[in-house]
This record gives sequence, structure tokens and C-alpha cells, in this order.
Amino acid sequence: MNAIHTLLHPRSIAVIGASADASKTAGRPVAYLQKHGYGGTIYPVNPRADQVGGLTCYPDIDSLPGVPDVGLVLVAPDRAIEAVGALSRRGTPAAIVLASGFGETGESGARRQQALKEAAGGMRLLGPNTIGLVNLTDRIMLCASGALEMDALQGGGIAVVSQSGGILGSLLSRAAAAGLGFSKLVSTGNEVDLEAADFVDHLADDPATQVIALYMEGLRNPEKFRQAALKAARAGKPVVVYKVGRSESGARSAASHTGALAGEDRVYDALFNQVGAIRAQTFADLLDIPAALATRRPLRGKRIAILTSTGGAGTLVADSLGVAGFETPPPGPETAARLRDLQKNDQIVLDRNPIDVTLAGLQPELLRSTIATLLDSPDYDAVITIVGSSALAQPALAAGAIAASLDQSDKPVLAYVSPYAPAVLANVNRAGAPAFTAPESFAAVLSAMLARTARENAGSVAADAGTGSGAAAQGAAAATGGASAANAANAGGDAAAHAAGGAPGVNPAGLPSGSLNEAQARALFASYGVPSVGERAVADAAEGQREARTFDRPVVLKVLSSRITHKTEAGGVAVGVAPQAVGEAIEAMAARVRQRTGIEPEGYLLQEMAAGVEMIVGVHRDPQLGPTLLVGLGGVTAELFQDTALRLLPVDRATVRDMLRSLKSWSLLDGYRGRPKADVQALEDAVLNFAAMAVQLGDRLVEAEINPLFVQEEGRGVRAADGVAILK
Amino acid sequence: MNAIHTLLHPRSIAVIGASADASKTAGRPVAYLQKHGYGGTIYPVNPRADQVGGLTCYPDIDSLPGVPDVGLVLVAPDRAIEAVGALSRRGTPAAIVLASGFGETGESGARRQQALKEAAGGMRLLGPNTIGLVNLTDRIMLCASGALEMDALQGGGIAVVSQSGGILGSLLSRAAAAGLGFSKLVSTGNEVDLEAADFVDHLADDPATQVIALYMEGLRNPEKFRQAALKAARAGKPVVVYKVGRSESGARSAASHTGALAGEDRVYDALFNQVGAIRAQTFADLLDIPAALATRRPLRGKRIAILTSTGGAGTLVADSLGVAGFETPPPGPETAARLRDLQKNDQIVLDRNPIDVTLAGLQPELLRSTIATLLDSPDYDAVITIVGSSALAQPALAAGAIAASLDQSDKPVLAYVSPYAPAVLANVNRAGAPAFTAPESFAAVLSAMLARTARENAGSVAADAGTGSGAAAQGAAAATGGASAANAANAGGDAAAHAAGGAPGVNPAGLPSGSLNEAQARALFASYGVPSVGERAVADAAEGQREARTFDRPVVLKVLSSRITHKTEAGGVAVGVAPQAVGEAIEAMAARVRQRTGIEPEGYLLQEMAAGVEMIVGVHRDPQLGPTLLVGLGGVTAELFQDTALRLLPVDRATVRDMLRSLKSWSLLDGYRGRPKADVQALEDAVLNFAAMAVQLGDRLVEAEINPLFVQEEGRGVRAADGVAILK
Repeated sequence: MNAIHTLLHPRSIAVIGASADASKTAGRPVAYLQKHGYGGTIYPVNPRADQVGGLTCYPDIDSLPGVPDVGLVLVAPDRAIEAVGALSRRGTPAAIVLASGFGETGESGARRQQALKEAAGGMRLLGPNTIGLVNLTDRIMLCASGALEMDALQGGGIAVVSQSGGILGSLLSRAAAAGLGFSKLVSTGNEVDLEAADFVDHLADDPATQVIALYMEGLRNPEKFRQAALKAARAGKPVVVYKVGRSESGARSAASHTGALAGEDRVYDALFNQVGAIRAQTFADLLDIPAALATRRPLRGKRIAILTSTGGAGTLVADSLGVAGFETPPPGPETAARLRDLQKNDQIVLDRNPIDVTLAGLQPELLRSTIATLLDSPDYDAVITIVGSSALAQPALAAGAIAASLDQSDKPVLAYVSPYAPAVLANVNRAGAPAFTAPESFAAVLSAMLARTARENAGSVAADAGTGSGAAAQGAAAATGGASAANAANAGGDAAAHAAGGAPGVNPAGLPSGSLNEAQARALFASYGVPSVGERAVADAAEGQREARTFDRPVVLKVLSSRITHKTEAGGVAVGVAPQAVGEAIEAMAARVRQRTGIEPEGYLLQEMAAGVEMIVGVHRDPQLGPTLLVGLGGVTAELFQDTALRLLPVDRATVRDMLRSLKSWSLLDGYRGRPKADVQALEDAVLNFAAMAVQLGDRLVEAEINPLFVQEEGRGVRAADGVAILK
Repeated sequence: MNAIHTLLHPRSIAVIGASADASKTAGRPVAYLQKHGYGGTIYPVNPRADQVGGLTCYPDIDSLPGVPDVGLVLVAPDRAIEAVGALSRRGTPAAIVLASGFGETGESGARRQQALKEAAGGMRLLGPNTIGLVNLTDRIMLCASGALEMDALQGGGIAVVSQSGGILGSLLSRAAAAGLGFSKLVSTGNEVDLEAADFVDHLADDPATQVIALYMEGLRNPEKFRQAALKAARAGKPVVVYKVGRSESGARSAASHTGALAGEDRVYDALFNQVGAIRAQTFADLLDIPAALATRRPLRGKRIAILTSTGGAGTLVADSLGVAGFETPPPGPETAARLRDLQKNDQIVLDRNPIDVTLAGLQPELLRSTIATLLDSPDYDAVITIVGSSALAQPALAAGAIAASLDQSDKPVLAYVSPYAPAVLANVNRAGAPAFTAPESFAAVLSAMLARTARENAGSVAADAGTGSGAAAQGAAAATGGASAANAANAGGDAAAHAAGGAPGVNPAGLPSGSLNEAQARALFASYGVPSVGERAVADAAEGQREARTFDRPVVLKVLSSRITHKTEAGGVAVGVAPQAVGEAIEAMAARVRQRTGIEPEGYLLQEMAAGVEMIVGVHRDPQLGPTLLVGLGGVTAELFQDTALRLLPVDRATVRDMLRSLKSWSLLDGYRGRPKADVQALEDAVLNFAAMAVQLGDRLVEAEINPLFVQEEGRGVRAADGVAILK
């Protein structure tokens, strides 16, 4: 996008409302541009000043001697609208509006924001309510953050895109203190025009950027973000996201379980997973993970050497790594022999890891060669060096030794700084080894590095994930084509057809609006290739008693009503009813349901009792991110254990496989404790068919759910024993 | 303990091996004692120096002009043993041995450690392999940590007891940088004599100590720790523990599920829970939580005001708090009106929290009065002030305003420092408001404060927890006495008695050693008041077919063998066998079990099929911490979901209630989704009776488990449908 390139590389900048007083917020931008060495032309604009920062100041935009590439607008909201209009009239390609008091403050602010957008016309806008942007690659600061007061702002491979200006300043000052460098930092504010996804898209092409750190409050345009993140993945630039809004997840409610389980924040998790973005779990991770990924050193396995000359700190790190599934094996005989030679000490104890080499903590060359030996060892995939309190006296020692060892190998080298020693931390980071002060950082960082390796080995994310609706159609076709014989034979079978009114399938155009009752819902699912249990729908006790004679074993009796979603609570489910007792059971159920709900049953279902693992499969439409697929352990306890996986539609078979294998209850499907294996192939088919149905019905489908879907023994298929579908 | 008082308050100190070169480790202690203003007598001992730090140096311990209160031994292991002997002979009450190379290095080191202990005789020892101790209340440094190079070491209410010297140094330097103060810091090293629990016990009586931070690798004497932690709780001094070793938990195995579920680390969790200690989940928590608790400001509820003048940072904190279950409600009308008055701004938006009062970020008096208004408001239980990047220009502003507001209320006041601003962080901490740089800290800290309030409201921990075996006996008596009518009627009923050989109970003295078979195990449990399902034990297919006639519904058929613990995997369980098919089923089972395990069945059980919620109840002996009780969701999927609670024995009814209510599956017992409630009273009785059995059998019981224990509808009691017991 051309305007973004201009914003990041302006040859001239008009600063509207620039103040001659550098201590005021409006005085900062010109001061920061000059302080950090901007080489282009700056036009301060302020009718009440002659000069700003030694530069000629212009009374208004119309008086400028040339058309600026970028207008940086510092004035208050109403005057900002005027300034944006004037910049646009002069043909300025892009402007940044810092003022707050727009969309974020309520209705009148929203009207102002609309006026701002209209004033901009064809000119692109960043903001309003932004702190601006910083191009550290080229040392161009279009930004009012107090963090730019710092002198030592280092360039580097990490780009930041933040929907909050305060967070941009926080990351910038924290990283500078830690010796980490950035390529570009952008605060997108209210996103009246340019939004976070636009910058992710642009930075995917930026040669100076290795990894993109994203602070997100919400997405205006999920599809644009999806495309941008996939583009970054294809370019080998991981996107690391810290997203707030996790705690709203419990607050929502929906008609079906799927709605309650698929809280909005989990949908973001699904989105990030599907575009290959890494979610930062803590705010510190948002710097830590990019710092590690920016080194581009590949982690190829889980065996980590921890080199220490101090006691407890190595244990802290090893313990955190162990909890996260990493291994810290002792050195093998050959590595141990090489370490003994280095230490010139036959007595040294090398049967453990953390590897305690006391002397190496004090002698730079010994430390370097010890790190190099561990990097060279086939026993380890990465090395963590512990820096202890002795470093306080020699702050350059560890950094020098670590830097000198980096060329020996492309394996990751990291450091833990145990005492408070900010200078050591910055030195080691600048040396090219990510250094952290929290033992927990290593698990987060190494997990992200391992995930990146796995992704790169599996081929590019883009190739797997396809492109939106195109992939949807393919997925649907593949799923239907691939349905197993067991499923195909049972799909839309007799019983389901009976309940739905005789047709062996459903014509979507002919579907009613609103809630379908259970039999209608399952008939719909069956028409897409999701088989149901055998059943009879009956109107009342007398018909029930007659039809029950066709069953030779106890049945499940259920109330039939499009108004009752949770039949169990309504007293509308009875399990194991003997065929001869069905009439009586229907009468009792009718009375119970009327009493509990006040609803008159539409009829009753007699179902054969299925056996197998009970799963839940559902589709729910997130108001923000679109249709989602949920798969998990079903039955009445589904909400209790919430053992579910969630993805955005469309999905392919590999994704459905991942979902099933990510469940705790996967082992129930996979032959748990000597039981026969369940028909996982048929389950995958059913889930893919269900997902294809949701894609094909599109906006007409509000939500749909099967719970339970019985997964029978291998080769015997699946059976939907309940169904919810709401259409509009 | 007198020796510990002497160690912390010596009037004279002999420093054995003191070096005149203050840059060497052996030169540090005398230098640090002098630098930090020790007022007592220092005797350097070193045959190769005349003076150390300007003090007369003595050639050996025998030449000292007086008996030192404490000997600080800096020399290498072999000479340390000699020095300890000489100090002991002169009547020195206590010594500290810094040298490593003892028990931590293997067999020869362990022999040296034994020699050291013998050389000490009646003299108390701290160490070896310790960095020493620091009394900051009285500014006495018996310590070689490089962290003492720092000038500004502040006194305060936090005590540190650490099993690692490196961690002591790390905490000391990190806290000093953050403006936090300590009372005492002790590194206990190899604990040849004095151990961590001794210092916790002592610090519970120390008037300068408000809270004890404990870094733990393992416990030598759990009962001593238990008593010390309870004493600290009684004294109102919370113990906050960071314990490593979490990742060993998966590595253990045991015969029963209970063993696999009750990994060692979970047993520590149980111990901490039962003595009222707070477990730090991250290393940062080990300083953060004590910093907050040391203020002694009580948190009485979950409603937190977040005051911000910067955008995103307040959102970060609010989001973290929301995930942890705290509330951030907007101000009520009255509070909002007062805030508007303060700001002299009718237009200010006060419908949200974080409460954004832009001006207050820049004006000290306005910031103070705004904090005071929020503290005074009945809408909030605590206030968090966000310090943004503008603070970089005015590092004293926030600290001053916060300090001035503290007297308005006893509610907690905390601060989040968003940019890198170590001076601001230290200023605010020194002002008395705990300040943090990670948004996640607030959830950890406020949760700990809330737990403390709950504990204090519930009365002292000590009163609840009793004192070891005394409480055990009481608990057992109370439990047996309180068994519900339903249980009492069924305990040791006909069927169980039949299987066990006719007696209506079991005489423990007459119990065999080794594994009991299922029927024997359940008969044992029944004799303690845990009722069993009705059943018949039979020898073979023919007897089984005859006895099956006494059942009028399908039965559960199980193999009977003391050698098979997991009957399901062995093919030794068949559910829903029709009475007329029992003979045939026994023959098939016999063949299957022989084929899978090579074990010849001892017989078979015909059991009535019970209904209800399936629970697991088990007792397992942790090699380190003693007998534990596990309660959780049972059935074949018990290990899959691991929804269990664990406590150390003995337990009382309140503890069992807490355990049950802490389960995810509690709602299954409590009338889940319209189902009848389960007989929780009978379940509590059965668990207490089972626990009392374990206490009474003591060391004879290796492990015992019931899975499943069917909890039937309210008033209908519980039934054990399986049992494992291993005796020695």
C-alpha cells in the first residue's frame, strides 16, 4: 500500500499545531524528529509562532511552500478536521491525527470522526487518537510518545503494530532498556481509515522486519487480518499477538451449548491458530517471543542445555522448562569428556543439567568454549546460559563470551539474568542472545520457536490454509466425496426420512425459518451426510405405544419441540424405556414438560439407544469473526469439562484431525484402556460434512449442534442422537 | 530458638579465612559488615594476614581474645571441618559454613558433611553450601552475596528464607532496585543442622517481619515445617512459598490411579493449602505477593478501581483482573459526581473503568484527591493507579500523590508502571503502595490478599487445623460417630460379609499382608463404615450360574484376583450381564483374562449394578510428606480428566467439604441440570470413614482406593463398587 510507504518514508512532513515549547506535547514531534536525525524537510505550522526548533513556522497549511508527503496533525478535534481538509485539498497523500475525543468518547465523538473521514476525502488517515508511528530503520519519528525522550533507540528486526498508543510507548521504552531494537512501530488508534491489518500486510514486505508484534483490542475486518497474517507467514515473518478482552468470554450466552462454549476470545484463539499467528499469553511475552524469533536461529528439538555457575537460578529455569514439556538431559559421555578437558578438572560433577561449571563463570575464554562445546554437542538443541550475581562486578563478561560463541552454530543461545542487572541484560541482548529475567520466559519463547520450526517443516501455512471461501468450497467437496461407506449407507436413512416427512434429503431453499425441532434438525444433517439413530416420531401416547412394538430393546424417549433446546432440564428425556412402557412414559413426560416449561409438546421421538463415545459437534456464528466449528466431548457433561476444540470455518480434514487429537478425550476415541477403537474416520467425515453444510447454508444458518453424536466401534460409523438447528 | 537469635544478632563475629583483598569472595564478608555499619566486634582469622579491613587479624581460632557469638567460616571444605571443631571447642554457640563440596556433590561429599556435623558437637550450624544470612533490621551482614555491593539496602517487613544462596542474592538485588525492604534473609544451604522450617518458626516471632517469602527445593522434616507455618499463620504472618520440582510430578508411577494422580508436587500443594501458606506460581510472585501483604492493608472484596491517564495500560490490568475473577465496575452516580466536581468538567466520560481522568495524570493535588475519592467510595475495595509515559518527565509526581492519599483509608492502593521507569517504581514502592510492571501481577497479588482476608475472617488456621495426630484421632472419632443412617444401615451388609468370609467387620490385626482382592478390600472398607454394592463371590461358572438366580436384573461380572489391579484392561469386567447368561460370561472372561495376563482367576464377583455419580476415593503414601487423601470424579475416565482434590491426612469434615466443592464435577453431585441431588452427606461420611481407616491402619496401609464409589440420590447413601487395598 503506497500511502503506508509514504507514512513510513516521508520526504517532507508538515506538523500542524507544532509548539515552540518542546516540553509541551505539541512541541515534542518536531523536537523528536530533529533529535533522532530526520533528514527530510519539516514544515511547522502554527499561526502563533515564527520559528519552531529553529525552522521557519508557517501560519497555515495553504502557506506551505510545497505539498508535504505527510501531515502530522497535533491540534484539538475540531481544528483537526479543518487541518485534514486543508491537507487533502493540497494533495497531501497521508495524514496522522493525534487528537482524542472522536469515536472513543460516545455519540458526538462518533459524529466528529465521521466528519474527519469526510474531510480527508482521498487522503489516507492514521488515527485519530493515535500516538503516531516510528520508523527506527530510517530514524523517522512521527510520534509524540514520551518514550522518544530516550537517547539510545536501537534499530532491529521487531516491528510493532499497536491499537493503543500507550502500549507502543511502553514497549518502546522497555525494549530500549533491554537492548532490543525495532524496525517500525505504529499506533493505529481509532482506525478511521488505516487499520492494524494494513500495517501487518505492509510489514510482511519490509526487509528490515523479521517478526511482527501486534497489540490488539479487536478486529474491524477479520478477513483483511487473515490475509495479512497469511502473507506474513508466507514471508517467514511470524506474527505474535497480545489480545485483550479475554475476560469478556464468560459474559456471553447463546441458545445452544456451542454458543456458551465458544466464547468470543476462544474464537480469536482459533483465528490465530489458523493463520499461524502466535498468541502471547502474558504481556512480557509480547516482547520476549519476538526477541527470540528475530534471531532466526532454528530450534530443532526439545533438549536444552542449561549452563550455570550459580545454584538456584538454573533450577528455576529447568523446572519451568520441564513443566512446559522440554527436556534437560545430562551431557552424554562424549560431551562430558570435552567439558572435563576444558575445565582441566577430572573431578567435576557432570551427571546433571543444569551443568554447573563454576570456573567458567569467571573466565571469558572458558565460558565461550564451554558454550561452544554445548552448541556443538549432538545432545542439545539449544543452550541457556545463567548469569549470576558475580556478573554485577563484570557486566561485559557474559555478553562477550556469548557473542563470541554464536558463530559456532545456528542453534539458539539464550541467557537468564538472575540478579537485577539491567546493563548485563542489555549487553547480552545486543550481543544477539535473547536474555530474560523471568524463568517462565524460556518456556514461552522456546515453545514459540519450536512451533515455528514445525510450521516451516510442514510447508508454508498459506499452502495449507487456502484462501477463504475458495477453500471452503473445496473443503466441502472433498468432505462429501470422502464420506465413509458406513456413513453413506446410513445418511438420511429411513427413520430420519420418516421424521422429516418422507424425502431422503432436504432442499435448503425449502427449509423453514426459526428453530427446527430435533427430528427436523437431524434430518437436515442427514441430508448432508451425518447419519442419525433409528427413530420413530409419534404424536401422542397411543401412537407411541403402537410404534414401540417395532423396537425389540429399551428405547430413548424424547419430547419433540422447536421451542425447547435443553430437553433434559425440561424433563423431556427418558433413557432405557421398555417398549411396553412407552405409552405410560409419554403421558408422564407430557405432564412433566408442561409443568416445568408451560410448553405443549409437538410430539415425541422413540429412538434406538446408541452406544459409543459421545461427542458434540456444533456451528456457531461469532458476531465479529464469522462461523465457527466446535468439536468436543459431548453428552450431558459437555459444559462441565469443556473439552472442546474450536476453529473458524472453513476447515479441511487436516484441521479436523488436529482438533480431535487436541482433545483430552482423544484417547477415548483411540482405544482407551483396552477398549475397541472408535470409528474416527467416520467421525471426521461427519464433522467435515457438518462443516460443509454450514458453509453451504451460509448466513441462513444461525447455529447448529449435535449432542451427542455417538461414535461407534471402528467400521460401524457414527449416529447423531440429538440435533439443534436455527435458521433465518 | 536461641541459636537462631544469636545468628541474627551476634555481638561478636569471627570470620575464619577472611581475606584482606575485598575483591575476593573471602574478602567480602568483613567488607560488607563494615560497609553496612555493623556495630559489634569483628575478629578476622587468617594466619597469612596481620590486618583485614583495618582490624587486627588472628592466626587461628584459639588465639581469639574472646569467644565469638558466631563463627563465619569461609575456608575450603576440609579446613572448614577443622575450623568448626575449633569454634565448638571454644564454646561458640553457632557457626555458618559457606563452602560447597559437601552433601550436594555425591558420596565423598556426604562423608565430609557427616564429619562437619560431628565436629560441630553441640554448636548449631547454618550450611554448609550457604551464602549466609542478612539481618537488615539491624544491618548485620553475615553473607558473601555480591548483591551486598549495592548501597541502598532498605529495611522492611519481608523476610526471606531460601534453600538457595543464588536465589537469596537475586531477590535481594531485585527488591533493592524496586524499592522494597527486607527484615531478614537467610540461605539455609545443605541444612546439615538448621533448616528452613527453623527460621520460619523463629521469624513468626520477629516483630520486624510481616510476611515470610520461602524458596523451597524440598522439605527434610515436613512436620516441623507444618508446625512452623501454622505458628506463622497464628501470628498473622503469611508464608509465601515458591517451590521448584513441579516438573518431576509426571515421572512417578504407582499401582493404583491414586498414585498416578497424586504426583509429589500436588502433595506439596495440599500441604501448603492445609497450613495456610500461599504458593507463588511464578518467580516474580515470590516478591510481588509479599510486597502487597506486607502493607497489611485488607482487601475486603473484588471490586477494583483502575485510575488511568493513559490508554492501553489500564485495559491490560483490567483484562488480567477479569480473567482472575475480579470486577472493575464503573463508578456509581455519587462517586461519578464527586469525580466531576474534582475535575471541574461536566463532560468527562465516567461510564467506564479503567477510569480515565486525563488531567489528574499531570497535577499532583488532583491525582491525590482523585485517588482519595475512589478509596472513600463504597463502590470499590481497592484502587490501582496506572503510571504512564508522562511519568518519565516527573518521576516523583505519582509517588507523592499516592503517598498522600494512603491515610484516607485502609483499602489497598497499588500501582502499575507502564513504561520502563525503575526510579518511579522504587519511589512508589517506598511510598507504601506496591508497584508492579507486569499486568499479571495484580491478579496474583489481589487473590493472595483476598485469601488472607477470608482466612482471617474464618478464624485462625491453627484453630481449624489442629495439631497432627491429635486431630487425626478426633477426626476419626467424629467421622465414625457421624456416619449417616443410610450408610450405617448398609455398612458391612450381607453381601460384603459373605465375600469376606462371614464376619460383619474386619479385625485389622488379623489382616493379611500384600494386595487384598476386590472383595476383601471392600469388606475392609465396609468394616470402617463405607458401604458396598450387594454381591456374591463365586468360584467358577457353575456356581456363578446357580447364584445368578438370586439377582432379578442384569449384573456386573468381575474377575476376583489380588494380582490384577486394573481389571478393565485385563478383560476382567463385564457390565449388564443378564442373570441367565452369567455362566457363559464367566467362561469367556476366564479365557480372556488368562490370555491377556497369564493369571489364573481366584474367582468371580456378581454385583448388583449401582447407579449414581461415580467418584474415586483413595489414600496414597507420599514418600516424603506422608499419607494423602484423594477425592474426585471416578469411573474409567478418572485419569483422563484428573478432576480431583488432594489433602494430607488427617482431614476433618470441613476439609472434605472444601475438597468436594473444589471439583469441576461438584455440580454433578449438586443437582446438575435438573437431576436429583446426590447424597453428599453420605459421601462426606464415607470419605471421612475411609480417611479414619487410613489413619488407624497407619503404616500398615500402603495404599487404598475405591473406584467407583457410586453416590446415589439424596438419602440413599453411597456404594463402593470396586476396591484396592495394599497392606504391609
